Amino acid sequence: MKNRVITISREFGSGGRTIGKTVAEKLGIPCYDNKLLQEIAAQSGFEQNYVKEASEYAPGGVLASVFSHPSSGPNNADYLWEIQYKLITELAEKGPCVIVGRCADYILRDKADCLRVFIHADIPFRMERILNIYGEREKSLEQRLKDKDKRRAAYHRFYTDMKWGHAQNYDITLNSGTLGIDKCVKIIQDLY
Amino acid sequence: MKNRVITISREFGSGGRTIGKTVAEKLGIPCYDNKLLQEIAAQSGFEQNYVKEASEYAPGGVLASVFSHPSSGPNNADYLWEIQYKLITELAEKGPCVIVGRCADYILRDKADCLRVFIHADIPFRMERILNIYGEREKSLEQRLKDKDKRRAAYHRFYTDMKWGHAQNYDITLNSGTLGIDKCVKIIQDLY
Repeated sequence: MKNRVITISREFGSGGRTIGKTVAEKLGIPCYDNKLLQEIAAQSGFEQNYVKEASEYAPGGVLASVFSHPSSGPNNADYLWEIQYKLITELAEKGPCVIVGRCADYILRDKADCLRVFIHADIPFRMERILNIYGEREKSLEQRLKDKDKRRAAYHRFYTDMKWGHAQNYDITLNSGTLGIDKCVKIIQDLY
Repeated sequence: MKNRVITISREFGSGGRTIGKTVAEKLGIPCYDNKLLQEIAAQSGFEQNYVKEASEYAPGGVLASVFSHPSSGPNNADYLWEIQYKLITELAEKGPCVIVGRCADYILRDKADCLRVFIHADIPFRMERILNIYGEREKSLEQRLKDKDKRRAAYHRFYTDMKWGHAQNYDITLNSGTLGIDKCVKIIQDLY
């Protein structure tokens, strides 16, 4: 019997992580997000910040070329991907949970009974949310959001061959900007 | 005060029309689908079947080239688009309603308080549904579904410049195959 897992992909600043955490609390199941990052860092020997950044760049980008040479086989991103793949598979085998990001929807496609969620919102909503919650005040916030979206999409495409944000890849996609964070939580909780 | 309108885009065979009709019944508001087609046909002078087909081909395709010449100005598809645009705008001004298909989400983007929904499902679910409900037995059903999807996407892109089925264009997208028709109805009804 496969475990029931909620996977949440999300645009940066859309509240996907908050939604995942709240849903998990309400359902009384664990939510893996930063814990997963910590574990990947521990197992790989890399710093957490490096792991975080690396998993948002598709191989072939800046980080890959700094750390590996075309003739030297798998690069760091591939190495981290393998650890991530193994860890997520193990977590899903342990029991029901919520996993935020890290291509869990793809990794678990045949391994768990997944509810595949994608959370998005328009740029102004996400900018305001980042300013309010994280207190970031950089001028180029809009550009940063767009860059993050692009990087996540490229990373996702490289490793999964799936189009990030394309409705057909999910059971449900929710616009947290127009529906509100609470409503998104309620819908996912009811669906579980 | 803008009227609250539910717009439903959908993949062929996904049950989007059934979902729209049921939601409208439960909410006690009108649902425009075939009625809209009839009205477009009446106002344009074309046969209903022609209108139905034409609105699934992007101009520049077969129908456009048969009926118009590059130097002769707007073609039939453009003419039908204008009628459709005007009719949908008028319907949204009349009162709350559900509108299925016909790029209503784009047409009403600044004219109504829209809940923009996209319904999709995988090919096997849609094939079975079409066989059960419409009793169609053609061998090339899978190919027909794929063709329909492509045509709707091309038509949508031509007139709206929006990517059909891309989560970011909707408030919510639902996989009727994995969630079930009834659950989709419930979620939309609750959101209204």
